[in-house]
Amino acid sequence: MTALASLKEVLAEVSDLRQAAELLGWDQETYMPAGGVQDRANQLGTLSRISHERFVAAGTGRLLEAAESEVAGVAEDSDDARLVRVARRDWDQETRLPSDLVVAMAREGAISRPVWQEAKARGDWSLFAPRMRITVELAQRVAEAIGTTGRAYDALIDMNEPGLDTAAVEQTFSQLRTAIVPLLRRVQAHADRVDLSVLDREVEPAKQLSFSALVVERLGYDLQRGRQDLSAHPFCTSFGMGDVRITTRVKPGLREGCLFSSIHEAGHAMYEQGVSRALARTPLAMGTSPGVHESQSRLWENLVGRSRPFWTHFYPELKVAYGGALDDVGEEEFYRACNAVQPSYVRVDADELTYNLHVMLRFEIEKELLEGRLSVDEVPQAWAAQVKEYLGLEPPNGAEGPLQDIHWTFPILGGFIGYALGNVIGAQLMERARAELTALDDQIAAGDFAPLHGWLGEHVYRHGRKFTPQELVQKVTGRGIEPGPWMRYVECKFGDLYELN
Amino acid sequence: MTALASLKEVLAEVSDLRQAAELLGWDQETYMPAGGVQDRANQLGTLSRISHERFVAAGTGRLLEAAESEVAGVAEDSDDARLVRVARRDWDQETRLPSDLVVAMAREGAISRPVWQEAKARGDWSLFAPRMRITVELAQRVAEAIGTTGRAYDALIDMNEPGLDTAAVEQTFSQLRTAIVPLLRRVQAHADRVDLSVLDREVEPAKQLSFSALVVERLGYDLQRGRQDLSAHPFCTSFGMGDVRITTRVKPGLREGCLFSSIHEAGHAMYEQGVSRALARTPLAMGTSPGVHESQSRLWENLVGRSRPFWTHFYPELKVAYGGALDDVGEEEFYRACNAVQPSYVRVDADELTYNLHVMLRFEIEKELLEGRLSVDEVPQAWAAQVKEYLGLEPPNGAEGPLQDIHWTFPILGGFIGYALGNVIGAQLMERARAELTALDDQIAAGDFAPLHGWLGEHVYRHGRKFTPQELVQKVTGRGIEPGPWMRYVECKFGDLYELN
Repeated sequence: MTALASLKEVLAEVSDLRQAAELLGWDQETYMPAGGVQDRANQLGTLSRISHERFVAAGTGRLLEAAESEVAGVAEDSDDARLVRVARRDWDQETRLPSDLVVAMAREGAISRPVWQEAKARGDWSLFAPRMRITVELAQRVAEAIGTTGRAYDALIDMNEPGLDTAAVEQTFSQLRTAIVPLLRRVQAHADRVDLSVLDREVEPAKQLSFSALVVERLGYDLQRGRQDLSAHPFCTSFGMGDVRITTRVKPGLREGCLFSSIHEAGHAMYEQGVSRALARTPLAMGTSPGVHESQSRLWENLVGRSRPFWTHFYPELKVAYGGALDDVGEEEFYRACNAVQPSYVRVDADELTYNLHVMLRFEIEKELLEGRLSVDEVPQAWAAQVKEYLGLEPPNGAEGPLQDIHWTFPILGGFIGYALGNVIGAQLMERARAELTALDDQIAAGDFAPLHGWLGEHVYRHGRKFTPQELVQKVTGRGIEPGPWMRYVECKFGDLYELN
Repeated sequence: MTALASLKEVLAEVSDLRQAAELLGWDQETYMPAGGVQDRANQLGTLSRISHERFVAAGTGRLLEAAESEVAGVAEDSDDARLVRVARRDWDQETRLPSDLVVAMAREGAISRPVWQEAKARGDWSLFAPRMRITVELAQRVAEAIGTTGRAYDALIDMNEPGLDTAAVEQTFSQLRTAIVPLLRRVQAHADRVDLSVLDREVEPAKQLSFSALVVERLGYDLQRGRQDLSAHPFCTSFGMGDVRITTRVKPGLREGCLFSSIHEAGHAMYEQGVSRALARTPLAMGTSPGVHESQSRLWENLVGRSRPFWTHFYPELKVAYGGALDDVGEEEFYRACNAVQPSYVRVDADELTYNLHVMLRFEIEKELLEGRLSVDEVPQAWAAQVKEYLGLEPPNGAEGPLQDIHWTFPILGGFIGYALGNVIGAQLMERARAELTALDDQIAAGDFAPLHGWLGEHVYRHGRKFTPQELVQKVTGRGIEPGPWMRYVECKFGDLYELN
């Protein structure tokens, strides 16, 4: 047996363990009874430790070295060569993390989740603050263990988006902001062009849920290899290409209805379902990075789901499915309401234009926390100040402030930037797709999503984690990650919608 | 650190891995999409192998030896002494199983489950036969690996019910049959005393499910540490005392309604929930054996759930909950219908008297298969012959024959005998409980289940797996496992119901 084959066996085992841990996490968010927290934390801790120890074992390191020699002559873009390269990157990174830190991250995450839910329900940051201190402390320990540069946040970015660093993100964000702020000001001066009051209408949650399941299936999410459940915070999780699940959340009011949330998560799920079967049970059997993943979810949610042709196709069915609640609302009116720009408190409900500002404020706060310039107790004030500065809003109430997202229950920081990168990358990929699929809008208007789904499958999904975000974007678009296409897209879309020109 | 403390750490990790595997199994039966089978089989195979290898490692053996010395002076019934004793028994047994056999059992089981569902739905044994051949072959390999006596079935019994063997089971079954056959004949001569046609009435499944949840909670099943879902074959599974779940199945007709199935599984669940917290994450943190476990489920299902005082309490509520479907049916009539004796094809729907015959026929067939005197293809004919001999019925249709139970998808045989042992042990324990709780029937009639739940908690639940089945029964009743109490119970109950005397 070659070293590569032996390495693959180890990696398959590690992959099995991680997928099992993913299922334990999914279950905690969907069906686990309250009493299960402590046992679940233990189980997650043990699975994390064992998969970590198997992976970073000296024997795995030796197999890796030998496999590197074996693939030296193999084509650089082949599955095997890429597998070895990615496994090496992961191994170099993970060997820096002590086992007890890995266990603590899994355990503390499981324990933080119900505390966050309770704190959010009560809108009381002080309930969550002790858990947040643990999150920050663990993130600091990770940054210190991984850190190769002087900047703590760099390590966290590198773990998520290999090839990027804090300075690159700051530059992208600064460019985005330069585009968003004046455009937002112009839109706000024409706010009367869009009426979003139709979204205050209410529709029975069961009707919304079954319609959203119908939509995501038609987009290309295979429900024989997936399912949709409810959770406090929607997410997508994969236990292998044959079982990729999404969750959503639903309220009677359409502003917080489930449809866009389901489409968003289905965008993630189609990506995971579309990874080449040849990569199963390897570290390549997942999306490239959180940022590229978000490019897929945001692309389907916004560039498709909030487009005119999409509603040309779906609006008649939506009206029937929603049992008359929208009988007097025309397609154009509904389309406009779904795209209304209005600074608001909650990221997941934010419009496309202000969404990135929500990410930027979290990025600022995380950097301050990580680098010790902000204490956990000061987060609500810092948040309020940022909400004022970025969004022009008064301080939010408890649940709509720093407790709104589940992410700080995962004892790691740096996860939010992927959302803004995703918008950027999604627009780049869509610009390229449009250049190749010249009839795309007509296809979407006819309910034919297969061409776009197929194009993404070919250019993005099937590669899994073979390429870095930069490599993938370069390969597909011929250019690096850059905010230009997104800026052009929002200028054009909202210029039209608000009749700015 | 003492060797015992180190041993406990290893055992805790093994326990975490096994509980994680249990969750993967629960998920496969409840929510997993069809496409997940292959990945799930891999995940279960890996978890089984790692937990097996950690447990049987030479290092664990050395810790065990050292721990045996450490507890030499400790009270024999203490948690620590019992822990070491049970770990030793498990270790001696599991070290005989090669790793690849353990992996195969977990993997093949996961793959067999959907095949069984499909075969059952079509009533076609030939679809399942290839999987059954694997089950038999793996059981034979296990029996050979474990086997210390000449008899293959002994090994399988010893794995499940330590201290018992085939001869002991055969003797008990023969005694039971001697009691059942003439009593059944007498009952059948008085069949007109009971009318079970009211069970043909139909009630919306959702109403049945919520009523069953209400009932099991009132019996003592803590839903903060549990939940009820649907599955093809009802089961109970524990992921620690804080999370013990049941499943049920439901059809509109009350004959296959969910209530007794839910009570049965809740009997298992209350046992697991009641194990002393001090035993968490050890091999003692579960019920004594399948047989003792069934004593708890069958006790609640039948000795409580099919008793007159139970219905004195619940019948008025049932009538309301079932929305008028039973308005014209009196309590006594309903009670009698729930206890009607009528030979039938499906074990889980069988009455108390003929139930054991269903177990005996499986026991006979399994022995024949295991010892090579019967081929898998011949099972339907052998089954038909046994159904004729034991129950006096014509050959069943496909789904009501050997495909009715999920058990042969678990690649192990010998699991069924626990059901008949459970009836026997349950009656012994209940006889003892009645002697101590002199007002038991009045308490049940008043809906006060706490005294019985507390008594079982004290005498059975909290001990977990500290004692063997024989030891536990001896400790509680002062006698070994014996069918006398069950025989007296059915003679008395059905003598009264069918007015035989």
